[in-house]
Amino acid sequence: MALLPEPLQRLIVALERLPGVGPKTASRLAFFLLKAPEQVSGELAEALKDLRNATGICQTCFNITLVNRPQCDICADAQRDEHIICVVEDPMDVLAIERAGAFQGKYHVLHGALSPIEGIGPENLRMRELEERVKAGNISEIIIATNPSMEGDATALYLKKQLADYSVRITRLARGLPVGGDLEYTDQTTILRALAGRQDM
Amino acid sequence: MALLPEPLQRLIVALERLPGVGPKTASRLAFFLLKAPEQVSGELAEALKDLRNATGICQTCFNITLVNRPQCDICADAQRDEHIICVVEDPMDVLAIERAGAFQGKYHVLHGALSPIEGIGPENLRMRELEERVKAGNISEIIIATNPSMEGDATALYLKKQLADYSVRITRLARGLPVGGDLEYTDQTTILRALAGRQDM
Repeated sequence: MALLPEPLQRLIVALERLPGVGPKTASRLAFFLLKAPEQVSGELAEALKDLRNATGICQTCFNITLVNRPQCDICADAQRDEHIICVVEDPMDVLAIERAGAFQGKYHVLHGALSPIEGIGPENLRMRELEERVKAGNISEIIIATNPSMEGDATALYLKKQLADYSVRITRLARGLPVGGDLEYTDQTTILRALAGRQDM
Repeated sequence: MALLPEPLQRLIVALERLPGVGPKTASRLAFFLLKAPEQVSGELAEALKDLRNATGICQTCFNITLVNRPQCDICADAQRDEHIICVVEDPMDVLAIERAGAFQGKYHVLHGALSPIEGIGPENLRMRELEERVKAGNISEIIIATNPSMEGDATALYLKKQLADYSVRITRLARGLPVGGDLEYTDQTTILRALAGRQDM
């Protein structure tokens, strides 16, 4: 005898596939959805269905866009500086930088980082497309904003070599103490980086 | 200009309604679903739709059941002892006790606990239905397994008074140190309860 009715069990299995959701959280969410107004689960189901049908990938920067548009809002925005490209790993990184509100250039989304362990090589990322954008000219600076991780560092180094033949300035986001952080609890590597990158005041 | 395409934004809003899911987790989950195979979001959407259509409430114990059955599997199981009823707050509690595998009686799901602050009174819970089951006779023991919280305690006391006129044994789950717990990190109230309930060995 199954402990739970099949539809509920199926929802728990589907929820367990989400990152950070284990069996206990999945049960809790499923029972919450069962108890909550039907609108809550209904709107979630609708949004999930629309997600794939209504979103696409920008043909220029590979950020997420609406399916009926070849370019994302940022690429289509003539107000933004098309001479500077900020290279990020994921669409979420675009969102993070946009929220900071200090960058007025365009983006390029790689959709991942180099990772030999996971079998992700340059051919799995949007690297060739970035080189083509640089080759087409008109780009003065590439800001590499991959994650400050081993994979992000490897990706940045690879890009630097790849783009060395073009007359384009290549920069990387600064490393150092995070604002609001606590020196006491900062890891060694970050302190080393913050020391190495110290600035006159 | 919106930072995100509307379908993605809508999914994030829908995910934020889940308990324990804040704006950051909701974004992370939404981007995960965007990147994951279509099957992952598709099966989740299907399970959400089926949840309400295919599940119902047991007419006897008010546990969750399939919509086309008047009784849940436990109530319908003639092998189980119908003289003992375990009273719980939520269907998840039934699952927890069933997983422990030591209880062979039937259940009664109150669907909540008394909470004057949240405006939940006896009329909002399945208390009358429990009294009717007791009144119908044939019950020898009621095990009150409400949560060891203020609301759970209040609910247990209320039930005890309510059922005092019937010749039925009323018990409550034992309080004490949780197995695998650490005395050092156990809260005062639990230690007091464990001392008061100490047993000869």
